[in-house]
Amino acid sequence: MKDKTVAIVGLGLIGGSLALALKGFEDYKVVGVARRQATVEYALRHAVGDEATLDVTAAIRQADVTFLCINPEDIVTFLSQHRDDFKPGSLVTDVCGIKGAIMEASKVLPRTVDFIGSHPMAGTEFSGIEHALKDMFRGAHYIITPREDSRPENVELLERMAVHLGCRDVVSTTPARHDAIIAYTSQMMHVIAVSVCDDESLFTCKGYEGSSFRGCTRVAALDVALWTQLFSGNGPALTACLDTLLEHLKAYRDVIAAGDEAALERMLTHSSERKRQMDLPGPDLLS
Amino acid sequence: MKDKTVAIVGLGLIGGSLALALKGFEDYKVVGVARRQATVEYALRHAVGDEATLDVTAAIRQADVTFLCINPEDIVTFLSQHRDDFKPGSLVTDVCGIKGAIMEASKVLPRTVDFIGSHPMAGTEFSGIEHALKDMFRGAHYIITPREDSRPENVELLERMAVHLGCRDVVSTTPARHDAIIAYTSQMMHVIAVSVCDDESLFTCKGYEGSSFRGCTRVAALDVALWTQLFSGNGPALTACLDTLLEHLKAYRDVIAAGDEAALERMLTHSSERKRQMDLPGPDLLS
Repeated sequence: MKDKTVAIVGLGLIGGSLALALKGFEDYKVVGVARRQATVEYALRHAVGDEATLDVTAAIRQADVTFLCINPEDIVTFLSQHRDDFKPGSLVTDVCGIKGAIMEASKVLPRTVDFIGSHPMAGTEFSGIEHALKDMFRGAHYIITPREDSRPENVELLERMAVHLGCRDVVSTTPARHDAIIAYTSQMMHVIAVSVCDDESLFTCKGYEGSSFRGCTRVAALDVALWTQLFSGNGPALTACLDTLLEHLKAYRDVIAAGDEAALERMLTHSSERKRQMDLPGPDLLS
Repeated sequence: MKDKTVAIVGLGLIGGSLALALKGFEDYKVVGVARRQATVEYALRHAVGDEATLDVTAAIRQADVTFLCINPEDIVTFLSQHRDDFKPGSLVTDVCGIKGAIMEASKVLPRTVDFIGSHPMAGTEFSGIEHALKDMFRGAHYIITPREDSRPENVELLERMAVHLGCRDVVSTTPARHDAIIAYTSQMMHVIAVSVCDDESLFTCKGYEGSSFRGCTRVAALDVALWTQLFSGNGPALTACLDTLLEHLKAYRDVIAAGDEAALERMLTHSSERKRQMDLPGPDLLS
């Protein structure tokens, strides 16, 4: 008998994957909430979660835990519109890639509702419930940004959920630190990928690409609305990262253009050594 | 009874993988040639190829096909030093990532020896025979640059070998076109990876990286001597690609810094559409 409920608001790629992966977690029933009837039907047909509904208000009123798996700007609106609909004593979290703006928006909630930001570092270049994967979160870092007054038992609950999802670890940090680091590790990778694809050689290079090209450009086929909001919601940090990247790329460009083989070798020694050092202590980053 | 011989000169990551993967090809015996006794012993112990030897001259004298799996500058030197040691009527090829300089160097060979450049688009970020993989070439493009007077039966022989290696296809092109495209699809990916790793945030970002970061930076742990030679041997083409990349990155940087969400959305729509279109007609590039 499942006597608790986790509501997944938004059954897209991440919400759908979460609804699949959370099934069987302790005594929680997983209720997916979608905006379109077709998505609800898909979820029911493929057992994405234990239940699926269009009625978001009813779902979050009975949910002990609510995951907001919608775009950042929609989360801000949702928190404001539904501030009084969350079950008192419940935990609300999200899964999006910026945390400062989300934590700020969560202040609208009544004090009886705990909000802890989440960012499971997982995804693919696809969108929509049809691409949801039960194993999406396996091996991924699960980042949380608790409020100062977040209840320890809620942090522990998220930690147990992350274990159930198969995550590698749970990393707790502040919204500001999250956003500064994610600008580098995630957002900048997406800016690089789309910039590479803007080269006019893109279409003529088919037949000549290897795993390095596929690895770098895979994420260029991104969800435009989502990433527009993520980049915009973290503009200063992302701009700073890009300025640093432009500097380092330009340094390589100049030494290659000058044909200075000795300087190039020194630079490559430095950079490749950093990468090898970063991968310590194990081969887990190469998976 | 194997009455033909293919010699693999250089048993590093690629040569070792080739020696593993070519075993059983038609009636060819695979003879690996290394510079160090320890490598020969490793090859014999792990059955990397059918035989292994330190005697390069003897090996190429009896080889019907010779693969030069050494660094670009070593290939140039080798061709000149051993020009009269290759078996008359034999095919000589290489596996390195630049073709203009190699094809030029191959002109030193007597007319009785055919030289066709090869570039199987495969590899990992590791070096050395211990990291050799039998499946290294599975699904990879195998690029060849025949000379104008290369014999059709030698092109066909390489095509059959590529099939045996499990390659996706064989793409024939000119050295100049190869080098121009590879600057974009391969060399630039490596410059991006090392430049990203030069960011001072590299070590503090552990715990915050996802698959996009791992995909982009994997190749930063590169073989310094090899990539110094590859970049230097293709300086003008690589510089041109990097200039284009810097322009496109700067355009994204500026629109993000300005907080112009509408322009950002337009640019992301354009770039992500290009990526989706490039991947047509199939999902094979995502593997």
